[in-house]
Amino acid sequence: MKIFCSKDSLISGVNAVQRAVSVKNTLPVLSGILISAEKQSLRFAATDLELGIRCEIPAQIEEEGTIVVPAKLFAEVVRKLPDTMITIKEENLAITIYYYQSEITLRGYDPEEYPLLPDLIDPMSYTIPTLIFKNMIRQTIFSCAVEENRPVFNGTLMQIEGSNLRLVATDTHRLAYSISEVENPKNASFNGIIPAKTLAEIYRLLKDEDESIQISFNKTQVVFQFGLIYLVSRLIDGMFPNYKQVIPQTCETKINLSVKNFLEAVERASLLSHDKSGANIIRIKVESTQLKIDQTTELGKISEQIEVTTQGNDVMIAFNAKFLIDALKVIDTDQIIFELSGPYSPGVMRPLDNPNYLYLVLPVRIS
Amino acid sequence: MKIFCSKDSLISGVNAVQRAVSVKNTLPVLSGILISAEKQSLRFAATDLELGIRCEIPAQIEEEGTIVVPAKLFAEVVRKLPDTMITIKEENLAITIYYYQSEITLRGYDPEEYPLLPDLIDPMSYTIPTLIFKNMIRQTIFSCAVEENRPVFNGTLMQIEGSNLRLVATDTHRLAYSISEVENPKNASFNGIIPAKTLAEIYRLLKDEDESIQISFNKTQVVFQFGLIYLVSRLIDGMFPNYKQVIPQTCETKINLSVKNFLEAVERASLLSHDKSGANIIRIKVESTQLKIDQTTELGKISEQIEVTTQGNDVMIAFNAKFLIDALKVIDTDQIIFELSGPYSPGVMRPLDNPNYLYLVLPVRIS
Repeated sequence: MKIFCSKDSLISGVNAVQRAVSVKNTLPVLSGILISAEKQSLRFAATDLELGIRCEIPAQIEEEGTIVVPAKLFAEVVRKLPDTMITIKEENLAITIYYYQSEITLRGYDPEEYPLLPDLIDPMSYTIPTLIFKNMIRQTIFSCAVEENRPVFNGTLMQIEGSNLRLVATDTHRLAYSISEVENPKNASFNGIIPAKTLAEIYRLLKDEDESIQISFNKTQVVFQFGLIYLVSRLIDGMFPNYKQVIPQTCETKINLSVKNFLEAVERASLLSHDKSGANIIRIKVESTQLKIDQTTELGKISEQIEVTTQGNDVMIAFNAKFLIDALKVIDTDQIIFELSGPYSPGVMRPLDNPNYLYLVLPVRIS
Repeated sequence: MKIFCSKDSLISGVNAVQRAVSVKNTLPVLSGILISAEKQSLRFAATDLELGIRCEIPAQIEEEGTIVVPAKLFAEVVRKLPDTMITIKEENLAITIYYYQSEITLRGYDPEEYPLLPDLIDPMSYTIPTLIFKNMIRQTIFSCAVEENRPVFNGTLMQIEGSNLRLVATDTHRLAYSISEVENPKNASFNGIIPAKTLAEIYRLLKDEDESIQISFNKTQVVFQFGLIYLVSRLIDGMFPNYKQVIPQTCETKINLSVKNFLEAVERASLLSHDKSGANIIRIKVESTQLKIDQTTELGKISEQIEVTTQGNDVMIAFNAKFLIDALKVIDTDQIIFELSGPYSPGVMRPLDNPNYLYLVLPVRIS
């Protein structure tokens, strides 16, 4: 292999694939990045066998070739290169980087040992605008369970039916739901659970200038393509719970309130409700035009009062503060409708005048 | 106590003093911030008995009073307050913060139990421009020892003689020296070792708009005053080594080289010289117009070559890469003079055309 490229191109390639590099290192070659120069294109690829990322970078290829380089060291070296044209040569399982009158040689691994990223054959394919998909990820991913012995809750359900794309995430205590339109020329449908790590990676890599993202799949894998990036992920095996059954269709109390005021009040109250047991429960009282949070703990006392508009019954209900804060931070509208039905039924937040998102949160039973 | 002030004023007060709050908490009251409203001025103060900081903040005092509030919780609450005029009342060892229609009450501690920050009586006092002093701290503090059983190396020597102020820091492997002019109307002199933590705190708190900093002292303490801040620190007991004896007056090789090129080459070489033992030694070879770093480790091989101007002998010498990088990062000139005298004598870096700074580094003996 012999190629010429800029430092910035190398950095963009490393940044794109580095998070897919295996950190467990059961197989030494998986701690590397596969670099291949073929037919006027330079490609970086990495996989931990669950998530794989491939990225094309601008380069001038003088001689084709393939090698696996140690990911961490290669990334550190690339970031410290001078801003000049870089020459890279590969020979005898070693890669040499030339700049000015200096050079660095790193030992590599045999590319034959590196697993191939699968190319999906004849995949059904959807297209969705980047900004919309990015926002859908942001508004749902935080509701995935972090550590769970039921893997379905570590992922987000992606459902495509006709021109609708839905993302649904739940950790069984709360559920975030987002829907938008998708281009679906073949009118195919899809139902798969995507690991939260995969979506987090897509969120990180999606640039605002990437106009759209193309989604393809087979029974066990899903592929996302955008810009110069090809990302393939396994799907999580299992049945996602029937979320439609959980979402209440009616409510006894409908509260219209400011996201900012509510968020700030809950954040302050949560500072005082962190008790030694780690619980962080806040009690909300809604009485006609007032929403109140009153509590006394060993640290002190808080009494928050917000002006709201209410339809229906007065209510007292308690929530885990974190579950309210998480959602209030990602909702983009100024106002929400908060729907409650007594102290034992889930609360549902909906952005005002935006039927494409909802967040459901279970209350905490208090004595 | 009853006062009115803005959220921003409260935040500036908390930010100024919070780092002086004791983290060890042997005495519970020391985990707090002393708030006192007296004679139209609101003061925040905190001390861990080694370092004490007092800060005046803009406020309207309606009723005088004093209380100690729990530092961490008070800081968190203040940061989450809305941007509006805040009212604070103190009563029965509790403080209540009012905003809009809401309020938070925190339990406090008895201010009688809080140690007083000493006011230096009739102190000798010096004045130095902020930007100069800030830069002197930045260019020396990194050479202090971090963990040492000889406390003198955990501080920086401050020496004032006539119109000269010197800062000198060493961990016995390297030494940083900086000198500048000071206003010294009474022609007094001072020689004290200031804890690195104190100087780091001053560096953090000094704002560019604070024009000058006033330094006063007695035998055991030093006081720095700038803006609305009064900072008092104990001095470290003990004899600082005679640094003048250590600095070589002559050299066998004088190298004129670019700080940027040298820094980048050393940084790259250090990536490859991190071996499993944690040592990070790089070998430098100077031959007339070339400075070369050539090394081969288990990770790979590097060969760096920089154009330099040399007077004197060729030389081969090895250094701990970190000790070179630390200094090259704080030197502000484009070029330095690097003075060497064979492989066993210290190297001395001086910024080109700036006699006010020098950095001495001991070589590593290599087999």
